[in-house]
Amino acid sequence: MAMQFLSDNAAAVHPRIWEAMRAADAPQSPYDNDALSLQLDAAFGALFGRDCAVLWVATGTAANCLALAAMVPPHGGVICHREAHIETDECGAPGFYTHGAKLILAEGEGAKLTLASIDAAIGAIRKDVHQVQPHAISVTQASEYGRAYHPAEMEKIAAQAVQHGLGLHVDGARFANAVAFLGCTPWEACQGASALSFGCVKNGGMSAEALVFFDTQLADLARLRRKRAGHLQSKGRFLAAQLLAMLEGDLWLVNARAANAAAQELGQAAPDRLMHPVEANELFLTMTAPERDALRAQGFSFYDWGDNAARLVTAWNTDPAHAAALAEAIAAL
Amino acid sequence: MAMQFLSDNAAAVHPRIWEAMRAADAPQSPYDNDALSLQLDAAFGALFGRDCAVLWVATGTAANCLALAAMVPPHGGVICHREAHIETDECGAPGFYTHGAKLILAEGEGAKLTLASIDAAIGAIRKDVHQVQPHAISVTQASEYGRAYHPAEMEKIAAQAVQHGLGLHVDGARFANAVAFLGCTPWEACQGASALSFGCVKNGGMSAEALVFFDTQLADLARLRRKRAGHLQSKGRFLAAQLLAMLEGDLWLVNARAANAAAQELGQAAPDRLMHPVEANELFLTMTAPERDALRAQGFSFYDWGDNAARLVTAWNTDPAHAAALAEAIAAL
Amino acid sequence: MAMQFLSDNAAAVHPRIWEAMRAADAPQSPYDNDALSLQLDAAFGALFGRDCAVLWVATGTAANCLALAAMVPPHGGVICHREAHIETDECGAPGFYTHGAKLILAEGEGAKLTLASIDAAIGAIRKDVHQVQPHAISVTQASEYGRAYHPAEMEKIAAQAVQHGLGLHVDGARFANAVAFLGCTPWEACQGASALSFGCVKNGGMSAEALVFFDTQLADLARLRRKRAGHLQSKGRFLAAQLLAMLEGDLWLVNARAANAAAQELGQAAPDRLMHPVEANELFLTMTAPERDALRAQGFSFYDWGDNAARLVTAWNTDPAHAAALAEAIAAL
Amino acid sequence: MAMQFLSDNAAAVHPRIWEAMRAADAPQSPYDNDALSLQLDAAFGALFGRDCAVLWVATGTAANCLALAAMVPPHGGVICHREAHIETDECGAPGFYTHGAKLILAEGEGAKLTLASIDAAIGAIRKDVHQVQPHAISVTQASEYGRAYHPAEMEKIAAQAVQHGLGLHVDGARFANAVAFLGCTPWEACQGASALSFGCVKNGGMSAEALVFFDTQLADLARLRRKRAGHLQSKGRFLAAQLLAMLEGDLWLVNARAANAAAQELGQAAPDRLMHPVEANELFLTMTAPERDALRAQGFSFYDWGDNAARLVTAWNTDPAHAAALAEAIAAL
Repeated sequence: MAMQFLSDNAAAVHPRIWEAMRAADAPQSPYDNDALSLQLDAAFGALFGRDCAVLWVATGTAANCLALAAMVPPHGGVICHREAHIETDECGAPGFYTHGAKLILAEGEGAKLTLASIDAAIGAIRKDVHQVQPHAISVTQASEYGRAYHPAEMEKIAAQAVQHGLGLHVDGARFANAVAFLGCTPWEACQGASALSFGCVKNGGMSAEALVFFDTQLADLARLRRKRAGHLQSKGRFLAAQLLAMLEGDLWLVNARAANAAAQELGQAAPDRLMHPVEANELFLTMTAPERDALRAQGFSFYDWGDNAARLVTAWNTDPAHAAALAEAIAAL
Repeated sequence: MAMQFLSDNAAAVHPRIWEAMRAADAPQSPYDNDALSLQLDAAFGALFGRDCAVLWVATGTAANCLALAAMVPPHGGVICHREAHIETDECGAPGFYTHGAKLILAEGEGAKLTLASIDAAIGAIRKDVHQVQPHAISVTQASEYGRAYHPAEMEKIAAQAVQHGLGLHVDGARFANAVAFLGCTPWEACQGASALSFGCVKNGGMSAEALVFFDTQLADLARLRRKRAGHLQSKGRFLAAQLLAMLEGDLWLVNARAANAAAQELGQAAPDRLMHPVEANELFLTMTAPERDALRAQGFSFYDWGDNAARLVTAWNTDPAHAAALAEAIAAL
Repeated sequence: MAMQFLSDNAAAVHPRIWEAMRAADAPQSPYDNDALSLQLDAAFGALFGRDCAVLWVATGTAANCLALAAMVPPHGGVICHREAHIETDECGAPGFYTHGAKLILAEGEGAKLTLASIDAAIGAIRKDVHQVQPHAISVTQASEYGRAYHPAEMEKIAAQAVQHGLGLHVDGARFANAVAFLGCTPWEACQGASALSFGCVKNGGMSAEALVFFDTQLADLARLRRKRAGHLQSKGRFLAAQLLAMLEGDLWLVNARAANAAAQELGQAAPDRLMHPVEANELFLTMTAPERDALRAQGFSFYDWGDNAARLVTAWNTDPAHAAALAEAIAAL
Repeated sequence: MAMQFLSDNAAAVHPRIWEAMRAADAPQSPYDNDALSLQLDAAFGALFGRDCAVLWVATGTAANCLALAAMVPPHGGVICHREAHIETDECGAPGFYTHGAKLILAEGEGAKLTLASIDAAIGAIRKDVHQVQPHAISVTQASEYGRAYHPAEMEKIAAQAVQHGLGLHVDGARFANAVAFLGCTPWEACQGASALSFGCVKNGGMSAEALVFFDTQLADLARLRRKRAGHLQSKGRFLAAQLLAMLEGDLWLVNARAANAAAQELGQAAPDRLMHPVEANELFLTMTAPERDALRAQGFSFYDWGDNAARLVTAWNTDPAHAAALAEAIAAL
């Protein structure tokens, strides 16, 4: 097999996740009444330093959409970036879960919303029954281009949400990578959020993401909706086990730091090619088709990004030798 | 821990399932493009002796509802038994997935539909735009009371579906138990179905059910809807691995036979208490509250079924010693 | 044309309704910002002796469903009679408007819910995430069989709703007939309701029903949903005009009394045939097919009700001579 | 009252519409089984020179959304202009009626789609299950800026729809104005459409729009959905009467020509101010706030269009004296 820089979403499962799952094999109460699931609120509460209500789900799409459905009525809207995953890569799942709520698209470099772009989106909406009114803002931490929102940015967006009476959702499919890059506390990286999709699958997990409600009243609603969406697994203990193992000894950060370090190494090999600063584990490099062919001929596997660029993604288990080889190969192009 | 007869839905995972999952750890293409997922159609096709299109999903609710959503428009209806799981235990998930289609409730002993009860349900509907028109029939094999549809019954219901232009869905959360009891081929037990929810989680699996489309055109639609419902896991290879392991060496039947045998042993211990014939791995026994207390005091764990009955469920790994002990304890009541 | 006892839903429009519509022809602000629409809250507030927020809509189905959608989340349920219009004659509209909420069916003679039948429906539901939880009760005043809820009955049902934390919706497609029969105040006939579908079309109107919110906060939500459902007509002044004319000089009661009187005359002609007491403007009479043929041969037009009964409906403009003739013809059968 | 150039959507009802409604007062079969509703298919069939299936509905939003719901599955998308009414002014109604389908926004001057902009929208979509796939194109004839698609443009867009396997919907809220401007046949102005929302309310009607299906199979589905949406009025004969009167003697064109003529007169008064060519009955003029104040002080009523422009709309009954006065006043600014 090629040296993998395609994506982090199909990487191997971390050994400690496997161990935790095996340890959970003994029968327990079904659904989320098992001893492991019941530890989630406390475990994430300790991590974030505040009350949490936490639901496991199998995918980031389910986490994002259950969060939005708890915050936005069917006739409402969600402000998000034009290139947000919920807009571009979930086959309309937000429309399904929210029963037709509208994604109100806003701009911003690096797929990051800004105060100005959010204001522009809100300002364009007449406050009458003919137009869909916003009920929430959704930001992606780190963004689709691997950009992180700094704590000061999050703080301002949170204040803006409060000012307009909007909920705040953070899509954290790569939240670990953002926190590892920022070096801040987990809460600083999502402060003000009503709900956070805390990703694990891309970070060494198998099939569990944590849907973390800081507005804990929303969780009761989401529990019903999770069942209604067919996401309440009867052997939920295996999902809880993954999440708890991820928090244990900060495995989530350990894994993210490894992925980020490989990404930094690659970025430093070709600073002039970088289309976006490297703030997580994704790189977007200008690169011609022949150059991409040349790399692939050397055994590197990655996605094209349009006609003149490449996307490289590192993972928790990216082999340092592979990263070094790719860095060298890029520098040599 | 008590001797478990609560449910099969939280039992341990079979060792061969674990092995198959471990063997799938090496990175593969994400979603359902991995080598294992790509084997599903052929593997189930061989099992059923006909073309199949197979999707893995995490839960029976998701399997049932994706099937129904592919067969029934939002303004349509599904004929099912008044006590069907889709009606009583999925928190309205069919209404969510089908966008509001109606479950048209029919009667029948042992939670089994009959030709007459289906005809009665259809006959009560005026053919005009004011009433919801049926588009499918859903039967549960084995039923909520552990009753199996014999091949001749399935054949007649299938013909009835054809006659009325209705799709046929089989909820097979305990399909293995039904087939093991009936001693027929898998196809005979679901003949005429457009789609089958082939259960594995209750039968020694961890987190994978097979949604089997015999009407393979419906599968394309279901693939979009699966993504849209947040059920397209990126490491889908772990779900495919479970399903393939279940078919390998007929593990699904081996497991079901073990569960059924324990159920038969319990049933034979108290024939006069049986509220329904034992045709799968569930038993419903008349039993007073003091009797139930007495059993629990001996270490047996099970659900009350209303005020004067108990539900016992066996699993692939029910300890024969536990089953024997419970049989003896019941006989001694 | 035959002497009409088919339905009140296609009767002619009352002359005062026509006059009011003509008077509304001069251009006004569009939607519900015209001078007439702005009078609705006060006019209905005076009628009911309490604060109201009133929306016009074109049909009873839209009124019922907008009310329910304001009271019940997509994952919730509505307790209603098995033969309620929302269950049997709206093509699944409640499922559409509420995004899949479930109608939880209860029993009761004459298509009327009772305290006991509501309790039975609630009592059958486990309070967990696997079953749909009720959020509202919907009663029909007068019922599908022309039966009225007496004020004391409404009072008790309202208390029951409060006790269980449920909203209360009254489908008043024939509310006028019920109030005219009961001789009570309008509020007494719907007391405790959060929302009332106040019917006009069956009572001499053309195309306007009043959706009356006594829980006025729900109205803001319903206004958005009305637009979203394509029910916000730009020349809404013509609907408001109908509703105001209906209240003016108690035209709604005058019309209902006329229809009720004709129904009473028919009922007194054949007391032994009555399947239900006559408490509004509908009669259900046991009647053989030859008897029905005999009446039709004399020029009377009405619906069969199953094989051995007939449904007769009177309207605001039922010709007294026609009613007398039919009463005589029935008595002579 | 001011001299009205606010909108055509609240103008008075044409006398011949009133007459037709009064003539329809005698009771008929309810819903759409009356003699008038049964004439619609033939009447519109004659107008368009081809088979049609026609449903009346109360609003353009309902017509648009029932059409789209018949053409697009919940997981699908509709390509429309970024400023289309269905996107900007229907409170998310398309999302409601289609159960969450996505509006895929495209560009184009004057709120008109072009071959290139449609291709760009389609080309940006990966053909996989992660992205919403288009199922239809919706164009507005005349557009939100009063621009008409010429027959040659419609022909090309229709061919493009066929090429991509997409349905074609035409929002014709002001279809009459477009046809009157173009001087073509009605079919030429919407050629290739599967469904047309044929507007009447803005053109002298009261409460009826025609939803015209040229793909007549879609109509059966739309009839069920119309009922399900609460849009099947029991006295539907009054809606059919309006539509038939509109076609009688080409009243729809007579009215549109009058409105267009007034718009042309206004446009010729200030050619330098025109932001868009005048091809229907709407004008968008650059105009400073003091200029707008000056016009309003002279008794003219109209909407601001952003900070530096005004929108003027003429109607079937715009008083020629008012139009002349306004033309003069604008020229004199």
